[in-house]
Amino acid sequence: MSVDFFESNREVLEQALQAAAERGYWSPFPESPSPRVYGETAADDGRKAFESVLNQDFPLDLPGADGKIGRERSPFGIDMDIRYPRVPVQTLLAQAGSALESWRDAGPKAWVGVSLEILKRLNKHSFEIANAVHHTTGQGFMMAFQAGGPHAQDRGLEAVTYAWQEMSRIPELVDWEKPQGKHDPLRMRKRFSVVPRGIALNIGCSTFPTWNAYPGLFASLATGNPVIVKPHPAAILPLAITVKIAREVLKEAGFDPNVIQLAVHEPNDDVAQKLALDPAVRIIDFTGSSANGNWLETHARQAQVYTEKSGVNQIIIDSVQDIKSVARNLAFSFALYSGQMCTAPQNVYVPRAGIKTADGSMSFDEVAQALAQAVGRLMSDPEKAVELTGAIQNDVTEKRIEAARSLDLPVLHDSQPLPHPQYPHARVRSPLVLQADASDERIYQEWFGPIVFIVATDSTDHSIDLAREVVEKHGALTLSGYTTDDAVAEQMRKAAERAGVSLSLNLTGGVFVNQTAAFSDYHGTGANPAANAALSDSAFVANRFRVVQTRWHI
Amino acid sequence: MSVDFFESNREVLEQALQAAAERGYWSPFPESPSPRVYGETAADDGRKAFESVLNQDFPLDLPGADGKIGRERSPFGIDMDIRYPRVPVQTLLAQAGSALESWRDAGPKAWVGVSLEILKRLNKHSFEIANAVHHTTGQGFMMAFQAGGPHAQDRGLEAVTYAWQEMSRIPELVDWEKPQGKHDPLRMRKRFSVVPRGIALNIGCSTFPTWNAYPGLFASLATGNPVIVKPHPAAILPLAITVKIAREVLKEAGFDPNVIQLAVHEPNDDVAQKLALDPAVRIIDFTGSSANGNWLETHARQAQVYTEKSGVNQIIIDSVQDIKSVARNLAFSFALYSGQMCTAPQNVYVPRAGIKTADGSMSFDEVAQALAQAVGRLMSDPEKAVELTGAIQNDVTEKRIEAARSLDLPVLHDSQPLPHPQYPHARVRSPLVLQADASDERIYQEWFGPIVFIVATDSTDHSIDLAREVVEKHGALTLSGYTTDDAVAEQMRKAAERAGVSLSLNLTGGVFVNQTAAFSDYHGTGANPAANAALSDSAFVANRFRVVQTRWHI
Repeated sequence: MSVDFFESNREVLEQALQAAAERGYWSPFPESPSPRVYGETAADDGRKAFESVLNQDFPLDLPGADGKIGRERSPFGIDMDIRYPRVPVQTLLAQAGSALESWRDAGPKAWVGVSLEILKRLNKHSFEIANAVHHTTGQGFMMAFQAGGPHAQDRGLEAVTYAWQEMSRIPELVDWEKPQGKHDPLRMRKRFSVVPRGIALNIGCSTFPTWNAYPGLFASLATGNPVIVKPHPAAILPLAITVKIAREVLKEAGFDPNVIQLAVHEPNDDVAQKLALDPAVRIIDFTGSSANGNWLETHARQAQVYTEKSGVNQIIIDSVQDIKSVARNLAFSFALYSGQMCTAPQNVYVPRAGIKTADGSMSFDEVAQALAQAVGRLMSDPEKAVELTGAIQNDVTEKRIEAARSLDLPVLHDSQPLPHPQYPHARVRSPLVLQADASDERIYQEWFGPIVFIVATDSTDHSIDLAREVVEKHGALTLSGYTTDDAVAEQMRKAAERAGVSLSLNLTGGVFVNQTAAFSDYHGTGANPAANAALSDSAFVANRFRVVQTRWHI
Repeated sequence: MSVDFFESNREVLEQALQAAAERGYWSPFPESPSPRVYGETAADDGRKAFESVLNQDFPLDLPGADGKIGRERSPFGIDMDIRYPRVPVQTLLAQAGSALESWRDAGPKAWVGVSLEILKRLNKHSFEIANAVHHTTGQGFMMAFQAGGPHAQDRGLEAVTYAWQEMSRIPELVDWEKPQGKHDPLRMRKRFSVVPRGIALNIGCSTFPTWNAYPGLFASLATGNPVIVKPHPAAILPLAITVKIAREVLKEAGFDPNVIQLAVHEPNDDVAQKLALDPAVRIIDFTGSSANGNWLETHARQAQVYTEKSGVNQIIIDSVQDIKSVARNLAFSFALYSGQMCTAPQNVYVPRAGIKTADGSMSFDEVAQALAQAVGRLMSDPEKAVELTGAIQNDVTEKRIEAARSLDLPVLHDSQPLPHPQYPHARVRSPLVLQADASDERIYQEWFGPIVFIVATDSTDHSIDLAREVVEKHGALTLSGYTTDDAVAEQMRKAAERAGVSLSLNLTGGVFVNQTAAFSDYHGTGANPAANAALSDSAFVANRFRVVQTRWHI
């Protein structure tokens, strides 16, 4: 390639390899939106870049486009009216197939170099992407910046790191010499070529368009596969910006920009299905509903399918030092982005007979009240609260709050509209906290959104058994436990390992169960129905490429 | 564990890790059956051990057995009449599930240590296993010894090596510290537990019962999964010996021997299907027909399914230095174990207009005759020939020779019964070599057995295009090319890489296209329909385990 992006990004790759091996804290992309970090004008520039595409044709030059579509609407109430080029499915596939021919020959260093350079440039556009994520997903601005920008970039880099780790261990050229006793040895030279699988399809979601798309996107790209990025029709802009930047880097490096394309489509049309079932599509990454994810796993048999679907996240409270710090931490987790996270907790199990604390025992009702009051306190200043809750991404989630209310369960904290100081038409709601009994089957399904059940169980043993069964049956991305008893902690760990779900213990400070850190925490385990893969590990990358060898005598 | 098999086998593991990284020649298990290597009495002891189980109950203590079955018959014509314990499917699964509970807690070092020790012991039983493989598969004794013994053990060790490589990079306990500006950093401790997927099912074949079973068997075992070994009803003994030895090692190490069980069953019953579809079975390794392999991939959706199926292996002759050495090498490949290898060549493409050699050009007919004559010469001394061809494993393969004959194609070398000096009732046949035209669709399916087509094509370009299409459509384990032109060699390599098949170039000496060497050659690519996995690489092991983390503040 004309520009050696592998060499120019080698240092960050080497640090990343070390970080992935050690799994301590590391990030090359600062999460602070401070002007001291990103530059004095970065925030303004990003906002202006965002505003400049509103009510316009988005400036993405995609060959083969036959029209313009797009009707994103911000959950904060502003009409975005951005129009994106629409390229027919067969054109996308033909262009990706054609790009594959040259991209495959570029080899691992070029694939990884280009991927690293794209990530570096994406980081420079973090404010622009933050605005795009904020206004498509409804995330509060700080979360949109962090999760949509640097944290998503971290996860992308993590996937590239694992991809390089696996590919770089394949020697390119090897001499093989087998002794033959008194005779001359057999001598062969062997060439091992890393080859991509084919075209990759990346299906984005409406709540974390970049964070959930980047791992698969960069894992595929870094292993030589051209990628067709299919954003959710409600959250196109963050991925359109991503694809635009990626195409610029590809062009600069002398490659066919069609190595990455954007597949914008109308809601409820069959573009995703057509792409997913095409024989040329050999890799699919998906984030979304269990119904769609399971459909892909069942029908897209020609492809390696990596899915992150839905689940029921749970919290087990056995005993606590101090209920206040527990309740503060949990209230934050309930309210954060209005529970519209695949990692957000839903069911909180508390023994009917109450729990032990350092200050004596507490009844079930006292625990439930403490949690509800903590939510109330967190919502007491709407101006601050809306920064945390963000807005409700779509009508279906808003209606789900009503459906939960109509379960006729005791209301511990009611969900209420919150006024947004900046956007009068924003769809903002405080969390709904209900009381339920463990025997109520209706709570063992995903209630995506700001809906929480405080559930009375027979005992902590019962809570743990329940949690394990629910993970095994419905899947979960997170499990959280509170106990002051080491034996109970061990019991929780064993249950989590058997059910295949990550466990957080006694979170009372600035770490929340909804959050994972790239290079240290795995997101998902791939061991329960909520996801068939983990972000990121060797298994996430090792089957995106194959090795083809050629051998001959020397 | 009471015996530390990880420490006692650490040296071989370290050598294996280095060998897998370098991909040069390496094997810890000598392939020479010489008494100087295996001991003066080893050959006799092995034969006696084999003979001692004939017409007997095989001495395998499997709990839950409800009867004895088995009716293996040697392709060399002797009745074996060995009876094996039959354990009902639900009992096998219950016992494996119970063994999983303790095995999973033993952890990676114990899993790998036990696996390495089993392999070491299997090596000591190589002669006994050689006799068992010889008399169940029909392989000549030397091949039965090498492929059934040390080479199978190499492939098993290779899988353990990759498993350890992937698991050992997961740190067990990590401290994570995230700076918080002027505030105290966030500090967490994280524990990463490698957890097995669940019960593994290993489905063996009748031609390479150990070589094809060991990679999956040891990959699953070394990643903490209990294994149910289901041998082909015609080739039980080699895997029964394997399971017996494995159970002894497990017991010695203080583990539940049910970590490995044997599932013997009647031909055409539904034991394999019942096992494969059980929700508790989470990993399946299969070698056999495309029909059965594809059925598993389609229906056993609860499991990770690794298949090696059938394909059409091809040879492209463009130009040669010396046709005699080419013909000698190819005749050996045609005759070796009567083509009953998934890697055996079937279609040989030669341009209709002939080829160039160092001694001038040769017509198509001259090339075809040279190949047929080389087969004739190799078969001219039946006493030597039968050591190479072995016997035909089953009636279906023998009948396939007749079916090929009835294609009414010109016969270049006819298949004939060969007398076996030792076994008068052995089913031994020389290879059938037929002439065909590239337009004949009937040759683009697998003709498993000693059946070869010398195929007239329009040109070398045509041969290469044809080879690529056939690999993409029908799959292939091997592709072999002969050319003295570097540009053509490059063209062949590109076609092989695009189709996803290993390429051997200009084999004229002591290396044959049917053979691969563990730690250097990949067997299969996982990139064409013949196999969805390669032996062995990271992808073959990395998804047999998952990582579950627990984190807490410190």
